[in-house]
Amino acid sequence: MLRSFGLNKLLGLSRSIRPSLSLSASYSTGKKDTFYFKDLEVTHSTTQKALVPKEQLKFGHGFTDHMLEVEWTRTGGWGTPRIVPFHNLSLSPAASVLHYSLECFEGSKAYRGDDGKIRLFRLEDNMKRMNASSSYLALPEFDTKEAAKCIQELVRIDNRFVPEGLGYSLYLRPTMIATEDALGVSESNSALFYTIANPTGPYFPTGFKAVKLYADTEHVRAWPGGTGNKKLGANYCGGTTPTLLAKEKGYSQILWLFGPQHNITEAGTMNAFIFWINEQGVLELLTPKLDGTILPGITRDSILKMARKWGEFQVTEGSINMEQVLQASREGRIKEFFGAGTACVISPVKEIGYAGNDIHIPLDINDPSSETGPLAKRIYNEIMNIQYGNTPSEWTTVVE
Amino acid sequence: MLRSFGLNKLLGLSRSIRPSLSLSASYSTGKKDTFYFKDLEVTHSTTQKALVPKEQLKFGHGFTDHMLEVEWTRTGGWGTPRIVPFHNLSLSPAASVLHYSLECFEGSKAYRGDDGKIRLFRLEDNMKRMNASSSYLALPEFDTKEAAKCIQELVRIDNRFVPEGLGYSLYLRPTMIATEDALGVSESNSALFYTIANPTGPYFPTGFKAVKLYADTEHVRAWPGGTGNKKLGANYCGGTTPTLLAKEKGYSQILWLFGPQHNITEAGTMNAFIFWINEQGVLELLTPKLDGTILPGITRDSILKMARKWGEFQVTEGSINMEQVLQASREGRIKEFFGAGTACVISPVKEIGYAGNDIHIPLDINDPSSETGPLAKRIYNEIMNIQYGNTPSEWTTVVE
Repeated sequence: MLRSFGLNKLLGLSRSIRPSLSLSASYSTGKKDTFYFKDLEVTHSTTQKALVPKEQLKFGHGFTDHMLEVEWTRTGGWGTPRIVPFHNLSLSPAASVLHYSLECFEGSKAYRGDDGKIRLFRLEDNMKRMNASSSYLALPEFDTKEAAKCIQELVRIDNRFVPEGLGYSLYLRPTMIATEDALGVSESNSALFYTIANPTGPYFPTGFKAVKLYADTEHVRAWPGGTGNKKLGANYCGGTTPTLLAKEKGYSQILWLFGPQHNITEAGTMNAFIFWINEQGVLELLTPKLDGTILPGITRDSILKMARKWGEFQVTEGSINMEQVLQASREGRIKEFFGAGTACVISPVKEIGYAGNDIHIPLDINDPSSETGPLAKRIYNEIMNIQYGNTPSEWTTVVE
Repeated sequence: MLRSFGLNKLLGLSRSIRPSLSLSASYSTGKKDTFYFKDLEVTHSTTQKALVPKEQLKFGHGFTDHMLEVEWTRTGGWGTPRIVPFHNLSLSPAASVLHYSLECFEGSKAYRGDDGKIRLFRLEDNMKRMNASSSYLALPEFDTKEAAKCIQELVRIDNRFVPEGLGYSLYLRPTMIATEDALGVSESNSALFYTIANPTGPYFPTGFKAVKLYADTEHVRAWPGGTGNKKLGANYCGGTTPTLLAKEKGYSQILWLFGPQHNITEAGTMNAFIFWINEQGVLELLTPKLDGTILPGITRDSILKMARKWGEFQVTEGSINMEQVLQASREGRIKEFFGAGTACVISPVKEIGYAGNDIHIPLDINDPSSETGPLAKRIYNEIMNIQYGNTPSEWTTVVE
């Protein structure tokens, strides 16, 4: 914490932006250490895009009429937050984001419930994680509440794009990029924070579809002393060739491993969970602990909190290696295995390819046609019920 | 190699672009697997930027009148190469380069010799490395000779920006970015290859300036199974906070280490070299071997080839750890330590901070005021002589 303070001081960044923090001192120097919802300026689009029919919605393709953007400079701090018509960005070909990957992002969603109300799910937690990512790149932080309020206003203005129906949502993509038009590996003196929104359909349009993961013993996603626990673009590009190689072998995604023991870290771009009877004979839901190489997923955290509240089985943030998975598989101790993330909530796994073995993962022993195990399905349903407002929760915010 | 072929096939990329490769087959499908110099279209700028006075040139700041750009799509292949007025890029806020760091770059220079001629240095080797970086991100490759010829033409057109004088140069920045306007972690279906040029002064305007490196035992630049041997933006952003922390401690750059033995990997954004008497009592120039975590630097390669040709001491691509450096320092066996890269050619090191020790590195024992050791100086001079045309070499190409 002290270290981070010193660093920010060195960089002329705000010390630690908290909602309760008085910013009068920085105001007096004319530098803004956060932007504020009250300053938001809105320019409405003069044209309205046609809504894409629900069955044609495709994740990541097609955006709403507007976007949120806020410029930042190291000398002046944050500028005025603006909601403006969706538009291309004009960037210098020397902009640092294009050369040194000074970029980070978040993913969150707005959901329309049966009651017609639109809800956000833990958006402020995304904003907190973005501050952690951004500051690691010497890019600015902001007041997480103020940022969430500005994004909420974007959703309100573009509310006609939030599709109806369970599984449908408006995907939100807060993004921070370094914009300084100068080459040279060093911190950028300007940045842009923006948010775009993409109406999207259910990840599993025809019900769950369990996937096969390839446990990759050759490529490594993240390592101690690296950036695997931040949501940086840099953590994703390295998976391109490994994932294509896994697809060539007939798998959907990589099960990322680490270390000589082949510890499980993440599943594709999701956090990994195993539900099993562990070596002590205890029924346990286990996910890799946040050791610096794991993204602190918001869905991951929601699952852990939910399962601990149930109190029906042991819930562990720990470690598990592939030899343990193989042994558990041989002894019939694996109940379920799944990935978890914002895009799909839960992605059940039916097979893991590892070192020449095809490790079969059970789904629902009572229903051979099922593409999900009962725990994965239960978690999925409970989280969806919260997100769509069927279960009241402090995790949701209604967009008024 | 076969793997790479299969991958490229899967992606609809060219198999292996070699100058000798007949591309008629791909032509017949209407898809271009490379672009060609003969197709280059030039649009001259209607205005001419004022030249910055030599003493005000700053690395990475300010660019020439023109830039090279070539668009690519997965379905259509490469478009027409164009030299056009320097301009901002118009990118969708969803462009994959801004989210998943699908980007790579190169650094090369054009030098104006005493004879008035402008020379390029091993530019085609940069193009080969870019193909390796780009294909790892499922972005396109090109014919390296054709790409080098197009960049050479950019230098020819903007030749008035190539400054006179030893140490002055026109820095060239070939860049590849993914431009598809869709979110989702997968390969991009469109890309832009471009090159911008920045007139720049000597890295050491007043002669060498030896630096202090901080041997960082906490942060790690690259990992086996990662992307450390490619020139990806993703390899640079992670150094932001570690480098700022090192600067807080009074060091210029990080000496990157790897593994429990603290093996030396790179120095800042440069390859690392030690000149010492090794444990066998042999005088040796050693640089870390290309084990997948080290950038295959073109200056590194030039130094190795040059020193091997001299045959005056042992030249080794191997490994060395910090305990060995400490021990060698205690026993007075270290002669010199330096970084090597395109920007500075050679960067002499005078101190390494490691685990509480300040390891003193000798410079010139015959000249206490010197900021470089004799070997570093000799290498620097020999390479500069080649680059500026004083020593004929197959490594240079004259821009006619």
